[in-house]
Amino acid sequence: MQKYNIVLIGAGNVATQLGLALKKSNHRILQVYSKHNPSAIELAKKLKSPFTTSLDEINPTADIYILSVKDDAIANVADHLRLKDKIVIHTSGSVDMESIKACSKNYGVFYPLQTFSKTKKAEFKKVPICLEANNKNTLKILETLAKSISNNIHKINSQQRINIHIAAVFACNFTNHFYAIADDILKSNKLSLDLIKPLIAETAEKIKDNAPLKMQTGPAIRGDKKTMEKHLKMITDKKYKQLYKLVSESIEGNN
Amino acid sequence: MQKYNIVLIGAGNVATQLGLALKKSNHRILQVYSKHNPSAIELAKKLKSPFTTSLDEINPTADIYILSVKDDAIANVADHLRLKDKIVIHTSGSVDMESIKACSKNYGVFYPLQTFSKTKKAEFKKVPICLEANNKNTLKILETLAKSISNNIHKINSQQRINIHIAAVFACNFTNHFYAIADDILKSNKLSLDLIKPLIAETAEKIKDNAPLKMQTGPAIRGDKKTMEKHLKMITDKKYKQLYKLVSESIEGNN
Repeated sequence: MQKYNIVLIGAGNVATQLGLALKKSNHRILQVYSKHNPSAIELAKKLKSPFTTSLDEINPTADIYILSVKDDAIANVADHLRLKDKIVIHTSGSVDMESIKACSKNYGVFYPLQTFSKTKKAEFKKVPICLEANNKNTLKILETLAKSISNNIHKINSQQRINIHIAAVFACNFTNHFYAIADDILKSNKLSLDLIKPLIAETAEKIKDNAPLKMQTGPAIRGDKKTMEKHLKMITDKKYKQLYKLVSESIEGNN
Repeated sequence: MQKYNIVLIGAGNVATQLGLALKKSNHRILQVYSKHNPSAIELAKKLKSPFTTSLDEINPTADIYILSVKDDAIANVADHLRLKDKIVIHTSGSVDMESIKACSKNYGVFYPLQTFSKTKKAEFKKVPICLEANNKNTLKILETLAKSISNNIHKINSQQRINIHIAAVFACNFTNHFYAIADDILKSNKLSLDLIKPLIAETAEKIKDNAPLKMQTGPAIRGDKKTMEKHLKMITDKKYKQLYKLVSESIEGNN
């Protein structure tokens, strides 16, 4: 398998886990950049690579430059770079591919669809990687790179990618918020989230082989007004009450 | 371990899985009742028990009577029964224990905290069972019964139980609805829910060992207004737009 020389621009959760996975697949991480000195040092140490905190010192000899900085910094960083025909990619779900076109003739997106943290090692093999490129040759190289770390590769355009991101916000970010609300309600009643962890696990498990719409349970889908009213009376937090009403209405609307 | 003679009143998802688990632990299911003939026959067949569709024909010789009918039917069914000092329990998350007090001197609640279906066999050993009883002796018998099918037993009062149910509605019913919304958004863009299934699994997995509040990711917790505005522009469905706004605000409020 082709090995690439890579510069990692960014040192957050995605850059960390992606860097570790690429290194493990024997690509060479030539350099790590972060504007924050401690982050740059931390990741450079993990990857045994040199680092810089200045965009002017980016190593110009790599094959691929991975922009894994905050969404609203991507275009700015790309504007600072002049990398001619080197491949430059960003890793964001929401940023248009064209926003980095200033820095090179060959650019694209390499969006790993998973929730990462710096400390928990990611199992990259199953992580879906969404690829987009401004030309065929670049796409081919991105496919080679992606296949070296994952078995789950998809060609996705910018419009689809932002919709994937929206879907992920509902199914993951919002879902986690509801876990947090459940935790809060239980704690207020001197109970532990442990009580409903088997239920949370089973709810996520069930949709592996079934359409979620068909798996819907609970008072709203049954049209059980009496239970919903009882719940609304018990919920003291105004925001939770509002959420309970709106989500229940949305479920009833699907009925 | 003590074996009990049991009458199952109801033949839905909970009655089915509970009946199967109790039979497996060598309790005797003396009789199954359902007002719907086909349901009664179906469950009676699975449990190899006699059945009836008339409350007047309930076998009076059992030790324990399990009311596993719809929430709004529980009190009515209990009013029809006169079982003196037999133990009578219901299995609902939302119905007050006292609503069945008319039918016996010894009554209680046996609430298995899981999402059940008739066809998918439940792993009862880990299912939390919430117990409540109107006297100590009844509670002791319910504990013996619960321990025979699960390792996860909790003494829970009616006030706590309804709050557990509310927490479960947020963490499971509402969560599943958000999976359904994600599925819908992806399908509208010719994409499959499979793409974000690893992300859904990881989101549920992460909170096994971490407080959900600390695991929150996504544009709302980052205060990333630009991405949220972009998402809101892309979401065409009015209800989804409303949900996106309200849940994001709720996440920002926690920040």
